[in-house]
Amino acid sequence: MDATFIILGATGDLNKRKLIPAIYRLIDHKTITKFAYIGLARSDVTSESILKDAKKFIPEKNTKTWKKLVSNTYYQILDFYDEKDYIRLNTLLEKVEKKHHLSGNRIFYLATLPDHFDTISKNLSKFGLARNNKTKWSRVVYEKPFGSDLASAKKINKCINRVFSEDQVYRIDHYLGKELVSNISFIRFTNRILEPLWNNRNVESVQIQMDESIGIGSRGAFYDRYGALKDMIQNHGLQMLSLIAMDPPKTLTGEHVRDEKAKVLQKTKIEDSLLGQYVGYKKELGVSRDSKTETFAALKISIDNKRWKGVPFFIKAGKNLTRKETAIHIKFKQINCLLTRICPTDTNYFTFKIQPEEGLYLELNTKDPNSPKDVLPVKMGFSQRHLFGANTPEAYETLIADVVRGDQSFFVRNDEIEYAWKVIENLEKGNLYTYHPGDVGPKELISWSSKNNIRWK
Amino acid sequence: MDATFIILGATGDLNKRKLIPAIYRLIDHKTITKFAYIGLARSDVTSESILKDAKKFIPEKNTKTWKKLVSNTYYQILDFYDEKDYIRLNTLLEKVEKKHHLSGNRIFYLATLPDHFDTISKNLSKFGLARNNKTKWSRVVYEKPFGSDLASAKKINKCINRVFSEDQVYRIDHYLGKELVSNISFIRFTNRILEPLWNNRNVESVQIQMDESIGIGSRGAFYDRYGALKDMIQNHGLQMLSLIAMDPPKTLTGEHVRDEKAKVLQKTKIEDSLLGQYVGYKKELGVSRDSKTETFAALKISIDNKRWKGVPFFIKAGKNLTRKETAIHIKFKQINCLLTRICPTDTNYFTFKIQPEEGLYLELNTKDPNSPKDVLPVKMGFSQRHLFGANTPEAYETLIADVVRGDQSFFVRNDEIEYAWKVIENLEKGNLYTYHPGDVGPKELISWSSKNNIRWK
Repeated sequence: MDATFIILGATGDLNKRKLIPAIYRLIDHKTITKFAYIGLARSDVTSESILKDAKKFIPEKNTKTWKKLVSNTYYQILDFYDEKDYIRLNTLLEKVEKKHHLSGNRIFYLATLPDHFDTISKNLSKFGLARNNKTKWSRVVYEKPFGSDLASAKKINKCINRVFSEDQVYRIDHYLGKELVSNISFIRFTNRILEPLWNNRNVESVQIQMDESIGIGSRGAFYDRYGALKDMIQNHGLQMLSLIAMDPPKTLTGEHVRDEKAKVLQKTKIEDSLLGQYVGYKKELGVSRDSKTETFAALKISIDNKRWKGVPFFIKAGKNLTRKETAIHIKFKQINCLLTRICPTDTNYFTFKIQPEEGLYLELNTKDPNSPKDVLPVKMGFSQRHLFGANTPEAYETLIADVVRGDQSFFVRNDEIEYAWKVIENLEKGNLYTYHPGDVGPKELISWSSKNNIRWK
Repeated sequence: MDATFIILGATGDLNKRKLIPAIYRLIDHKTITKFAYIGLARSDVTSESILKDAKKFIPEKNTKTWKKLVSNTYYQILDFYDEKDYIRLNTLLEKVEKKHHLSGNRIFYLATLPDHFDTISKNLSKFGLARNNKTKWSRVVYEKPFGSDLASAKKINKCINRVFSEDQVYRIDHYLGKELVSNISFIRFTNRILEPLWNNRNVESVQIQMDESIGIGSRGAFYDRYGALKDMIQNHGLQMLSLIAMDPPKTLTGEHVRDEKAKVLQKTKIEDSLLGQYVGYKKELGVSRDSKTETFAALKISIDNKRWKGVPFFIKAGKNLTRKETAIHIKFKQINCLLTRICPTDTNYFTFKIQPEEGLYLELNTKDPNSPKDVLPVKMGFSQRHLFGANTPEAYETLIADVVRGDQSFFVRNDEIEYAWKVIENLEKGNLYTYHPGDVGPKELISWSSKNNIRWK
């Protein structure tokens, strides 16, 4: 399989930090053997300067691989709104593909703000750049966020679906490429023992936590337009929720999985919320001085179907919190207490740890060997890093490999995106509480959690 | 709680290796604070010599505890069949209880062959030694084996039940005192997630393995009368089976648990068997030169009730095998393969490791991070020793503490014993195959296992 990577927004952070390092590893792991890389942006830079910026994000470099990348990398100035630039790109593409004996498969990667998705998509189509036929495919990757609300997402989808077929479209949510997130459906559907437990007869609640210890960094102008709900929950949070909650798909393949995820998102509703903003946020660079944007959100969510009726799903996300941890905890119901003299104080939990540590854990009660009538919870588990080493692939490497192979399983379909926006838009925002950097959230979280009967792990 | 321990068969191995060390630890852990110990046997020995023999089986000695044991230990010659000796024992008991200000609670421990159980029980009753009333209780512990067949077990039970009430009777099976065996019912009934899986809809088979690497040692004369079926499976094997298979008891307490275990044993039947004898067995000290006694047995067992219909239970036990390992493996059924492109080659296992290492393990399938379409089984678990330290109590310590407390949960009731003998007696023994010390069993085990669709872990 060979392909040309065409990155729009090549001078941005994402390209340097994630995309070039991912492509480097795909070459190094021989996932792709023949390729070319074309960077596009408005600035007058060179392929050398872009590669130099990216180099420091590749910890262990194989000289041969690096040389290959350097000799197959090109840069061209491109203004998204200037049609002439697309014509020049066409010429460059044909020259490059010929020179490197490539078959003409193309991956267009839109590493830009969603504001430009419409125009770029139209122009790629208009100038015949994204050809797609039996011998040569073109695939188009849209970086998140996909729109800034339901209306804009619908508008982009409409435009895209006019010029591309859905099987060419890869809406990226890099959480879906994280090892333990992409593992959710594998673990659920290759283990006999989970399906009988995965329902409202046995599950008491599900909690999805996305705690970040860092603030908004230099993303102030962007972040202030989005906030925690749109930046983290509409995409990552609801995607994880849909993977946990979906019914078994017909097969574990792209369309069937996306069918089931979409079905769940359609039935998902926010029942209660607590929003917060950290003290000092309004003074951050690029942030409005009277900003009402939330940097913290805790949500209670219901899924109105047979499997989950009555089971609350909780999602929590925030900036500048005590710790950095993303994890999903399935809490099972209290066992019938007639069975034992002493009820276990803790019930069973099944946990997916997403980051920074990746792993899988099950909490079981056993007999306390030193007090034979007492129950003691023990944690069984495995750490991905300890078991498989630190070299599990990065999310972007996994996802770009999927694009090359044409596997859409871990990309978000148009209907999923729209249902997820609807979930967020239907929320009527209440008060905005404050918290101090380093807190676990606003102090009102305590009473909110107690009211909603959720004990955060 | 105070008690006098009266050990019949005090010069035997069990007393030295297990009972005195267990009583020592009960004193050291302050489980009992006031006590006396009276050893009884036919030989003309002293309490000092018995304690000296036992001392080497107590690894870490606290001088104060040891002194207390020494000053409260007595020895008397007693011929089980000489009534005068019981009268003398009565005198000694009253003297000792008075001297040590004990309330008169007595534990009679029959560490003898079952041949003597009848006579001893009758005499303890006849001479008023085992008084049992509101202020002073007497409990009688019968060491295994409990009889040598169904008829002898029935005869002993009949005799015992004439002179004692069942709540005074403690039939010991020391496997029930092993930490992970006594944990089976705790783990099954204090964890929400297990009950929905614990049935023929989800379990494919259960295997109970009791592999020993040692031979019969100096137990030749005894062992040759019993063999693997009666020495290991009738008691330990079927007890573990009944704990795994029983329906949920009303409460996790003695009679309710024993009710359910008895119900399961009543429905248990051996469907197929493979017996073996190791080469060299006939030359062992005390063994008949043309012995037909099995030193290896593999059994396929059915339980004819709603929960387990169609699920085979396998038990394997043997001497002089490759390894020493006692473990119970619950094998779950293959998952519906439509769900994934590649079926997991291994299904889920839930494992109780009994000895030499104690622990609990769950095998789950996850995504192979280096080959995203492949499934890899991973083992989650905890090792009792690593989690709780090496100081988890020994089986005999646990069980003697239960006798002191009057908890019969982990002792075998008369009906259980008889049902278990019936299971063994109903087996029509087939060929006796040979194997060499250090083998995994007779070579015929391969075809037998393949015929019965069992892959031993």
